[in-house]
Amino acid sequence: AFTRGLKTVTLIPGDGIGPEISVAVMKIFEAAKTPIQWEERNVTAIQGPGGKWIIPPDCKESMDRTLIGLKGPLKTPIAAGHPSMNLLLRKTFDLYANVRPCVSIEGYKTPYTDVDLVTIRENTEGEYSGIEHIIVDGVVQSIKLITEDASRRIAEYAFEYARNNQRSSVTAVHKANIMRMSDGLFLRKCREVAENFKDIKFTEMYLDTVCLNMVQDPTQFDVLVMPNLYGDILSDLCAGLIGGLGVTPSGNIGANGVAIFESVHGTAPDIAGLDLANPTALLLSAVMMLRHMGMHDYGKKIETACFDTIRDKKVLTGDLGGKSKCSEFTEEICRRVKDLD
Amino acid sequence: AFTRGLKTVTLIPGDGIGPEISVAVMKIFEAAKTPIQWEERNVTAIQGPGGKWIIPPDCKESMDRTLIGLKGPLKTPIAAGHPSMNLLLRKTFDLYANVRPCVSIEGYKTPYTDVDLVTIRENTEGEYSGIEHIIVDGVVQSIKLITEDASRRIAEYAFEYARNNQRSSVTAVHKANIMRMSDGLFLRKCREVAENFKDIKFTEMYLDTVCLNMVQDPTQFDVLVMPNLYGDILSDLCAGLIGGLGVTPSGNIGANGVAIFESVHGTAPDIAGLDLANPTALLLSAVMMLRHMGMHDYGKKIETACFDTIRDKKVLTGDLGGKSKCSEFTEEICRRVKDLD
Ligand SMILES: CC(C)[C@H](C(=O)O)[C@@H](O)C(=O)O
Ligand SMILES: CC(C)[C@H](C(=O)O)[C@@H](O)C(=O)O
Repeated sequence: AFTRGLKTVTLIPGDGIGPEISVAVMKIFEAAKTPIQWEERNVTAIQGPGGKWIIPPDCKESMDRTLIGLKGPLKTPIAAGHPSMNLLLRKTFDLYANVRPCVSIEGYKTPYTDVDLVTIRENTEGEYSGIEHIIVDGVVQSIKLITEDASRRIAEYAFEYARNNQRSSVTAVHKANIMRMSDGLFLRKCREVAENFKDIKFTEMYLDTVCLNMVQDPTQFDVLVMPNLYGDILSDLCAGLIGGLGVTPSGNIGANGVAIFESVHGTAPDIAGLDLANPTALLLSAVMMLRHMGMHDYGKKIETACFDTIRDKKVLTGDLGGKSKCSEFTEEICRRVKDLD
Repeated sequence: AFTRGLKTVTLIPGDGIGPEISVAVMKIFEAAKTPIQWEERNVTAIQGPGGKWIIPPDCKESMDRTLIGLKGPLKTPIAAGHPSMNLLLRKTFDLYANVRPCVSIEGYKTPYTDVDLVTIRENTEGEYSGIEHIIVDGVVQSIKLITEDASRRIAEYAFEYARNNQRSSVTAVHKANIMRMSDGLFLRKCREVAENFKDIKFTEMYLDTVCLNMVQDPTQFDVLVMPNLYGDILSDLCAGLIGGLGVTPSGNIGANGVAIFESVHGTAPDIAGLDLANPTALLLSAVMMLRHMGMHDYGKKIETACFDTIRDKKVLTGDLGGKSKCSEFTEEICRRVKDLD
């Protein structure tokens, strides 16, 4: 195989509809002649030495080498004590920034138009610390852990992101009126970092107020940065505004270029294997990945072909309001990608 | 004064626009000949013995006697260490259930129609425990405290509420996939209580999924019950769906009939004293209060007059899209209340 000049990416197809939407993405990438070579890996968690849950060594090895992953949905583990693979991946590679752009898609009608914002979620600590205790019978505590380092790091990421993506404002989302010390620390770091980015407008807003304002007029928001749980909530809320998890991309970014891009919808076991799934979220995540790798032209071409297909409304999967199969939707995007050459 | 058969209610007018919207409510209650007598009290926090912040003894004494309060907005304290008066009131009277019905208002256009749901928020613990520590420099923890008793109590309240208000389902909102012990305990209690309410459908949903589904189709929800912070967020989100905090009522309910009903919008200092404020949220909170006191007919009459005024669109305050003053809007509701007799 001719691999010179090709970049290798670790592909984790995932469960349920994961494999078929991964095939769709690969086909579209091929049609676009994207210089990407895929290295497929599975990530069912296994128990390593001492019973600790780890991701399979061959997946870890691949990611350590390629630095870049694209991931389909993973089924939620049911075994007691089995960690969420999504969380284990974020942790294993210290993917500290979860980035979800939410942009209204022309032709896909929702109650909102002109949404164009990005949620940036701290991805390593906060309410996801995993530290919990039983104090006495019937009294339980969970610990939300906020550190100066992680707060500064995510704030810096958000401002850099804003600057590099021609965005004009960053809003820090918090409840420092209630969690004065933890959210207070997070907020203080955001304020400090803001001092170094005078070209970007900085605002602060309570999480509840953000939710209220978001559903009333999402166009007032640009880049939002927040602790882990708030990001979990707000990213889903914002996805809902533009059409749901089937059309929203996501990226988990770490240090030194490491990143995993993923569709955040479920595995949809009811339609798995039936050629009915919508590959858009994974495809747009792959487009984010291309941009992350500096391949802006390829990213643009694929994104345009995808959005044109949706706007045109002739070949759409069921969830998008059409009657076409996943493979037909994919072929239509491939056709348009080639036309754009 | 003729006070026989009158019920006394503690009125806390509050700050900013609080006094003028309180006057509006009193006028409308008078027009409806509601057998309520108001006992006005202030609640600027004071420092009691040992420097502890308390609500003024004359307010406490009034509430202890009347059991029922109606409260306008209170300004956020700026003094360091000064508690939020809203929280101090909830705590002082152990108002464990925060109840916010969100119902679409005919004639007041938002992107959503037919919203008809109620958020029931645990109001005493969770992320609002106020327990925080510095572990080492730059590492802070906040403790989310969940107890069996408070979880059972709020679950029981939610199911009783559903049953007493002809509602058919209760959804427990949680992140027990992440906070397995704390949200797990909360969820377990909801499940247990559900067993005793076989007439009410019980479902469970992740908070992020609720947010996603809520903005896509709020009509799928009925009664929602959840820990403190999630309620803070969801109640504001839901208020946004039907027009914001200016039109949504709220009640804080304790044991043995104790309750404080309040508008949850801000004090709007920019328009305070200008006769421009919208009294709807406080009025609808007062209607909730009447129902809580068993005065359903008075409640219905006032609610109808208020909604008719809004639907009619002729006399509306600025935030509702009109040009009328607070006093004109109030007069219009009074006129309709009298017509309904
Ligand atoms: C799968 C789940 C553990 C995860 C989370 O809670 O973060 C998901 O909701 C997400 O947003 O990626
Ligand atoms: C005023 C503030 C402390 C309060 C809260 O966070 O609970 C408010 O947002 C509310 O929902 O009543």
